[in-house]
Amino acid sequence: MIDDSVKIGSNVKIGEHVIIGENVEIGNNVSIGHHVVINRDTCIGDRVVINESTYLGRVPAANKSMAHRPAKELPPLLIFDDVKIGNHCVIYQGSTIMEGVLIGDLASIRENVHVGKDSIIGRNVMVENNTLIGRFVTIQTSSYVTAYMSIEDHVFIGPCFSSSNDKYMGMENDALQGPVLKEGSKIGNNATFLPGIIIGKQAIVGAGSVVTKHVVDGEIVVGNPAKKIK
Amino acid sequence: MIDDSVKIGSNVKIGEHVIIGENVEIGNNVSIGHHVVINRDTCIGDRVVINESTYLGRVPAANKSMAHRPAKELPPLLIFDDVKIGNHCVIYQGSTIMEGVLIGDLASIRENVHVGKDSIIGRNVMVENNTLIGRFVTIQTSSYVTAYMSIEDHVFIGPCFSSSNDKYMGMENDALQGPVLKEGSKIGNNATFLPGIIIGKQAIVGAGSVVTKHVVDGEIVVGNPAKKIK
Amino acid sequence: MIDDSVKIGSNVKIGEHVIIGENVEIGNNVSIGHHVVINRDTCIGDRVVINESTYLGRVPAANKSMAHRPAKELPPLLIFDDVKIGNHCVIYQGSTIMEGVLIGDLASIRENVHVGKDSIIGRNVMVENNTLIGRFVTIQTSSYVTAYMSIEDHVFIGPCFSSSNDKYMGMENDALQGPVLKEGSKIGNNATFLPGIIIGKQAIVGAGSVVTKHVVDGEIVVGNPAKKIK
Repeated sequence: MIDDSVKIGSNVKIGEHVIIGENVEIGNNVSIGHHVVINRDTCIGDRVVINESTYLGRVPAANKSMAHRPAKELPPLLIFDDVKIGNHCVIYQGSTIMEGVLIGDLASIRENVHVGKDSIIGRNVMVENNTLIGRFVTIQTSSYVTAYMSIEDHVFIGPCFSSSNDKYMGMENDALQGPVLKEGSKIGNNATFLPGIIIGKQAIVGAGSVVTKHVVDGEIVVGNPAKKIK
Repeated sequence: MIDDSVKIGSNVKIGEHVIIGENVEIGNNVSIGHHVVINRDTCIGDRVVINESTYLGRVPAANKSMAHRPAKELPPLLIFDDVKIGNHCVIYQGSTIMEGVLIGDLASIRENVHVGKDSIIGRNVMVENNTLIGRFVTIQTSSYVTAYMSIEDHVFIGPCFSSSNDKYMGMENDALQGPVLKEGSKIGNNATFLPGIIIGKQAIVGAGSVVTKHVVDGEIVVGNPAKKIK
Repeated sequence: MIDDSVKIGSNVKIGEHVIIGENVEIGNNVSIGHHVVINRDTCIGDRVVINESTYLGRVPAANKSMAHRPAKELPPLLIFDDVKIGNHCVIYQGSTIMEGVLIGDLASIRENVHVGKDSIIGRNVMVENNTLIGRFVTIQTSSYVTAYMSIEDHVFIGPCFSSSNDKYMGMENDALQGPVLKEGSKIGNNATFLPGIIIGKQAIVGAGSVVTKHVVDGEIVVGNPAKKIK
């Protein structure tokens, strides 16, 4: 079911049982898999590939236990040229996915996220809201990017990375502080980041480390708690 | 395709390509997204929201390598008023989701689970069978709740939590012992719990900790293995 | 929509809104859930169960930030007799799933993977490409199996396992080395494995351990870094 208001470019391939909502715009040479749902206002560039059962333009939900309510009015989801999105992904309104980004199967990206040019969001990666991801960033499979996090260009995050932003764990009057990963830093698999941690440029965090303090530029840390390697 | 035996309340919104099986009951003002499948006997209250591609009422499966076979005959899945369920979720027969619960995208809940009023099951959270989750509990994104676990009211679990119940790792004659998280305890992100661990009321477990022993009421533990903070 | 070239055995049950591509072969007594998509050339044995919204035969994708490009020409996905596949799974071309394997909901298996007879791939498990998994292996919920890994018969991997294969984290000229888990080894939940680690026969790795060195046959290790238990 494709709404009458949808604008579709030339040479667009649309699968079976696809639903496209009001005012969606789709560029040229786009490929849309079976069972895809594109919610209203989403804007899709040229040569974008959207695989089967993916949902674009999700509106945030909340219940009364949520300390931090999501934004109510969001701009449209913008997907730029040459983006490839896997199967069974869920991407929210108000986010921007820049040119050439690759998003793996079963990944989800919340609202108000910016993903820079040519970055990779791996399979089963969960990205929370209000996060800024730079260019040529790799976030590997099953990693977790918390809200209000900042990931600069050329950062490499191994699989199963875990971050947090909430020092007081769900209590009231609690300002969320996402970690900051500076340019070119590299994070090993299954590392754990506490709220507000800053990782310096080209710094390296070993696999399985628990990072409780800032790491300066170029430093290598490992362990629980993570300490500088001699 | 909606079976003739289905009972549907007033003002129910049903998306495209939805399949609803025998004897399903749906309350008033319910919203069902595109490509949702609701299996037989499922009972859904008023004002429930079910997002796209979610599957409700899954029957457990097994193969011959499984030491602990799932139950064969299960009661229907019950979803109470004002529950909101995200996209691409899989929820099994025999579970009960109480009023006001929020379930994130790509989450799954196995059979014989009780989720108490107003709790949050985050995106990509996996809850195993025979688990009891209290009221106003928050389980954040990508956490793993093992079978036979008990989580009391007002517990907060950060993202990427990992729990286990199987001391002898898949060997025969092995009684499963899920951890117990007592009222108001708070668990940091990517913490690891061994089988049968009891966390006391209002106790706090730091991010990345590996909890190998019980933690008494109000205690704060961190590290691998987790030890009391002075 | 079922392509004319598809060969279907007797007593096959096919759900609503299923799409089956060119030259797919399906055995006898197979059950295919609603919204399933089976891509071209996939070959499915007898008594296979494929649950709702699962996608079989996915072709790998890449972008320019990817250091290791996926293979371009792949053989068909082969699914042998009595395999059961959960809901919302994504399984790639070029893999082989042997008799009696159980795959949980929301799991994904990349290309060129072999899963041996009667093994279990748990819910939300991600298996990367070119991995060899033996017989009677259990990989529990939300675990991550990296590329070029080898898992021998009767291995038990607890939930939230994390492995890696890339010592230099995304840099060029970097040969990937997946860990090797020898016969009957047992890995606790949320353990972290560095690239190329070899775990000996019947060895045991404790929950939450960070394994930085090889573990010899029958040894038990725990901690960060993991050390032999006395």
